[in-house]
Amino acid sequence: MKLKLTPVPGSIVAPQGFLAAGVFCDIKRLGTGKGSNKGKKRDLTLIVSQTEATVAGMFTTNQICAAPVKVCVPRVAKGIAQAIVVNSGNANACTGRQGMRDALAMTAATEQALGIAPGRALVGSTGRIGVLLPLKNVQTGIHAAAKQLGTTPTHADQAAEAIMTSDSRSKQIAVEFLLSGKKVRLGGICKGAGMIQPGMSDTGARPAAVPAGLHATMLCFITTDAAIEAAVLQTALREAVAHSFNRITVDGDMSTNDTVLVMANGQAGNRLIRQTKKSSATTAPFKCFQAALQHVCLELARMIVRDGEGVHRVVTVRVSGAQSAADADAAARAVANSSLVKTSWHGGDPNWGRIIDALGYSPAVVVEDRVDIGYSTPGSRRVAWSLRRGQPTRTPFATLWKAVQPQEFDLHIRLNLGRGEALMYAADLTEKYVDFNKGTLADPSQAASLGG
Amino acid sequence: MKLKLTPVPGSIVAPQGFLAAGVFCDIKRLGTGKGSNKGKKRDLTLIVSQTEATVAGMFTTNQICAAPVKVCVPRVAKGIAQAIVVNSGNANACTGRQGMRDALAMTAATEQALGIAPGRALVGSTGRIGVLLPLKNVQTGIHAAAKQLGTTPTHADQAAEAIMTSDSRSKQIAVEFLLSGKKVRLGGICKGAGMIQPGMSDTGARPAAVPAGLHATMLCFITTDAAIEAAVLQTALREAVAHSFNRITVDGDMSTNDTVLVMANGQAGNRLIRQTKKSSATTAPFKCFQAALQHVCLELARMIVRDGEGVHRVVTVRVSGAQSAADADAAARAVANSSLVKTSWHGGDPNWGRIIDALGYSPAVVVEDRVDIGYSTPGSRRVAWSLRRGQPTRTPFATLWKAVQPQEFDLHIRLNLGRGEALMYAADLTEKYVDFNKGTLADPSQAASLGG
Repeated sequence: MKLKLTPVPGSIVAPQGFLAAGVFCDIKRLGTGKGSNKGKKRDLTLIVSQTEATVAGMFTTNQICAAPVKVCVPRVAKGIAQAIVVNSGNANACTGRQGMRDALAMTAATEQALGIAPGRALVGSTGRIGVLLPLKNVQTGIHAAAKQLGTTPTHADQAAEAIMTSDSRSKQIAVEFLLSGKKVRLGGICKGAGMIQPGMSDTGARPAAVPAGLHATMLCFITTDAAIEAAVLQTALREAVAHSFNRITVDGDMSTNDTVLVMANGQAGNRLIRQTKKSSATTAPFKCFQAALQHVCLELARMIVRDGEGVHRVVTVRVSGAQSAADADAAARAVANSSLVKTSWHGGDPNWGRIIDALGYSPAVVVEDRVDIGYSTPGSRRVAWSLRRGQPTRTPFATLWKAVQPQEFDLHIRLNLGRGEALMYAADLTEKYVDFNKGTLADPSQAASLGG
Repeated sequence: MKLKLTPVPGSIVAPQGFLAAGVFCDIKRLGTGKGSNKGKKRDLTLIVSQTEATVAGMFTTNQICAAPVKVCVPRVAKGIAQAIVVNSGNANACTGRQGMRDALAMTAATEQALGIAPGRALVGSTGRIGVLLPLKNVQTGIHAAAKQLGTTPTHADQAAEAIMTSDSRSKQIAVEFLLSGKKVRLGGICKGAGMIQPGMSDTGARPAAVPAGLHATMLCFITTDAAIEAAVLQTALREAVAHSFNRITVDGDMSTNDTVLVMANGQAGNRLIRQTKKSSATTAPFKCFQAALQHVCLELARMIVRDGEGVHRVVTVRVSGAQSAADADAAARAVANSSLVKTSWHGGDPNWGRIIDALGYSPAVVVEDRVDIGYSTPGSRRVAWSLRRGQPTRTPFATLWKAVQPQEFDLHIRLNLGRGEALMYAADLTEKYVDFNKGTLADPSQAASLGG
């Protein structure tokens, strides 16, 4: 199997049969939170398939989860959808029964405006926690968006803009590849920035053992014209998210709203990828599709880290030689979320003491005189080792210092105890992050809300 | 039992039969790390009992632990000591076999300079990780300190100063109380500032289940003239640390060097507190002593948080109603270490959305419509509730805002699911913390070291 992915414009409207729109309906200014609207920024997105699509989703495992997540989980489980409606500026989280009614009202308004079957619309929200949605505005926005749907890259741009909160730029990608001789496209948009360390599962239920570090609102919406059964699509997405969105951290905080949704409408005309008696994961078309989906998820996930709140440097933490995969994951997360390590990255300081300290307090088994720590530029095989078997190397300081100056670098950690591997796409901790999130209120009497 | 604690001056030299000194021997300028020495700051402390004392200790559970910790654990286990030597500016961590030889050389030089029995000196270090000690300087310092030992408050002040790294002020306390009709004194000094979330145990070994958040260098040295058996002293200290140093966090990073040591020389002449057939914990003198020790530990622990790197606000996180004590601890640590919660404290923003978000991703069981969140000023019984049973209250925003403006306030979280309780003494996250720790090197070619 050889997979060639060709970039194409238009992100979510690149695949056949998908339309999108992003409009302004005045949600943000009602909150005082992140992304408050001063300039009439777009705040409502609609993504629609001309025909019914199979669907898969991954959702936050935070026990406090938002109404739109609660609405989506059972709908995605049915495997069919035709539209996604998303608002920014208000998370519709911790909003009780009224929040659930509002999320359902969003899907109902979408289904009505588009003339699609009840239960076929999905919903996402991001923004301030604990404030009721301005539902009238949202409903007006849905009807306006339904009238503006289109298939040009501008439509995709506006849809990608309208899901942004503290994001400084929109995040989009689309690729084309061949499946059983047919051209298939996959496109996606996403938003991130703060409260970013997703730990998503199929149903939002926690795995039996909650990984120690699992802790953004990140939203991602993917479209494809591939023909693929819902159950197989879910398998592909689960794997793709495990290697992308669930591997990123900006600030170690897991949001109440994290959601990834994929709609597949089959309009590319490839032979249907279906569950077979032997594992579907072994068929060539599935492998191709899964690899393409994972590529799209990973590119979007990395855009979130690069555009994280206040982020200056992005570091790929590569742990190998752990006693187990779980140990590798725990070690990588401890390092990726250590305030002292993150501030040293910000300073461009090749400090290894804070790294080995974080490894030592992580739940992973670590033996001091086995630990190697080094740096490389992304894509380069040349690692500048600062520590080998627990001992400082003779690598000149200037070499190590130079290795951590670029805006992106790789941190290599070898525990030399086994074969467990893990990586995390992580960010530094800057004064700008603190300043942005301290949220000092100039005039507290004007605050409309107290949430996220 | 009624315990009356009277504050007395002199901290570690307040109890009968203890001497101290703090000198400058030029350790710090050899590192480029925290607390680099520009003004010949004292960097070596000696604490000595005139007579042999019983001893107890608690040590970091970080798997990467410093040479002085490795030297102390077996010596403390023997239950007898007479002196403690401590240097600042160099952690003697990740220094391999030479580090162990250096730590032992420090104890040997101390025993020789004081003329005490071999094995009776204990050692502590704090500062840069991964750099060998300038042993000659240290040895010269030990001999100088031995000549300067004394019992005046100035001697204690100098000892407390010489263990400081990034601390902005020294931390000292002493109290007097009655035990079997005799006046007994307890005094202590400590240092902290960054890399602060201790998780200490008797031997540095991890408990079977590592608590989720267990993650400073903090050092604390306590003296008392009480007569108490070593095993009983260890029981008292374990309990005291569990309710003080192990309940604080500045940045969530657990150090390689965390150490608390207590020497008890019996010179007060109280009836020996000993292990009895029934649990010693039930006798009145033990209870008095334990309460006094816990008071000293807690006051010192809180001084560490208040003087944490860049810390502006100190918040006591009080969790109650958890399903278990472990759940309460996990919930309190998730909130106390959330970057988003900590930045909101810095901003004086009574944001509850980030708090409930952190509760939701913690390992503790949390049910959204049971959660209460509120604020009070320390010592006040009046709580301003912002969330009751998952719903925003009608408490005016101005009231909530006012509650989080003081430099110290209490955060009350009731999970309403059981009887588990826990508290954490936590700190905000400020631009100053980031700026201090980014450690930008103006001239990397001058860096002598790469560690902590």
